[in-house]
Amino acid sequence: MASQEIEALAGALARLPGLGPRSARRAVLHLMKRREAALQPLLSALQTVSERLSTCSTCGNVDTSDPCAICRDPRRDERSLCVVEEVSDLWALDRSRLFPGKYHVLGGRLSALEGVRPENLHVESLIQRVAAGGIDEVVLAMNATLEGQTTAHYLAERLEKFPVRLTQLAHGLPVGGELDYLDEGTLAQALRARRPVA
Amino acid sequence: MASQEIEALAGALARLPGLGPRSARRAVLHLMKRREAALQPLLSALQTVSERLSTCSTCGNVDTSDPCAICRDPRRDERSLCVVEEVSDLWALDRSRLFPGKYHVLGGRLSALEGVRPENLHVESLIQRVAAGGIDEVVLAMNATLEGQTTAHYLAERLEKFPVRLTQLAHGLPVGGELDYLDEGTLAQALRARRPVA
Repeated sequence: MASQEIEALAGALARLPGLGPRSARRAVLHLMKRREAALQPLLSALQTVSERLSTCSTCGNVDTSDPCAICRDPRRDERSLCVVEEVSDLWALDRSRLFPGKYHVLGGRLSALEGVRPENLHVESLIQRVAAGGIDEVVLAMNATLEGQTTAHYLAERLEKFPVRLTQLAHGLPVGGELDYLDEGTLAQALRARRPVA
Repeated sequence: MASQEIEALAGALARLPGLGPRSARRAVLHLMKRREAALQPLLSALQTVSERLSTCSTCGNVDTSDPCAICRDPRRDERSLCVVEEVSDLWALDRSRLFPGKYHVLGGRLSALEGVRPENLHVESLIQRVAAGGIDEVVLAMNATLEGQTTAHYLAERLEKFPVRLTQLAHGLPVGGELDYLDEGTLAQALRARRPVA
């Protein structure tokens, strides 16, 4: 059909999450039809990110500078540290703009099944950050999965000797959640954590 | 959240069809985590296509060469010409590998509503190709929409003076189509074009 070069571009796009072969071809056509408005901006954005890409040596965030924009931000509260599994979790939390502190990315979760042990995660660097002092609260913002919660429990044990407040995200009904469509686990958590009506 | 450069990349990706802001951010993370395996191949594929991108001056296909790979292909049947609305239609048809001839891209469809008139489409170059001779059949492969069929009728009128066979794609049930879920228009077409059981 199209030339090898176009097929190569469609192939590279098709490997992005959220794009399959068909939508990748539509994206290629879109780019080829809008050379100035779409292809060039994407190309230069990719080039810039590719040149400056780095992992923050403090928190593990990926950014175009090290330390990352969050670690460098003087308006961030140094005394609050939010521990997350992945960079995508950091981004998701930070989009909400509700957490004023800094982050620590573990790079995964403990998993007996997948053979992920504490030494495979950025646990020691977390312990060192907390041991260095100046932190009042550590939010263990793991996913609400079995492995996420196992990881949170492990970290809580490792951190309990330090004078910090350990917290975790609340479990319960998601906003807009309908009881009829929620799984029993969520319902059980929401019921257990029920609060008096204000 | 992330740096300006990363936001710019997410923005450029989010404007691709099939990707929204959320999936664009996931794609950015995917690319940043797999610098060698994903970011570099996409970057170089984009660069190559950006450098060589051209529109075929014969048929209107977009490709990395002019004339395009299809127009240059000596195994293609010069005597069959398939007229389509858009480059995406050409690609869709050509993926099926069932049409052995060459193509002509109109660049749109006639539309009174959108003010698209014959002079806004590549109609004259089509007439010239047919007038030049050597073509036995012209397949009017317009979309099965009101505007597509209007365009096909217009082209049929313009081409009837030439000694070519004018054909169009069959209408009817799509493969796997269930009567209960099909619109009345399709059912009416399928019924009208019914054929004796072989």
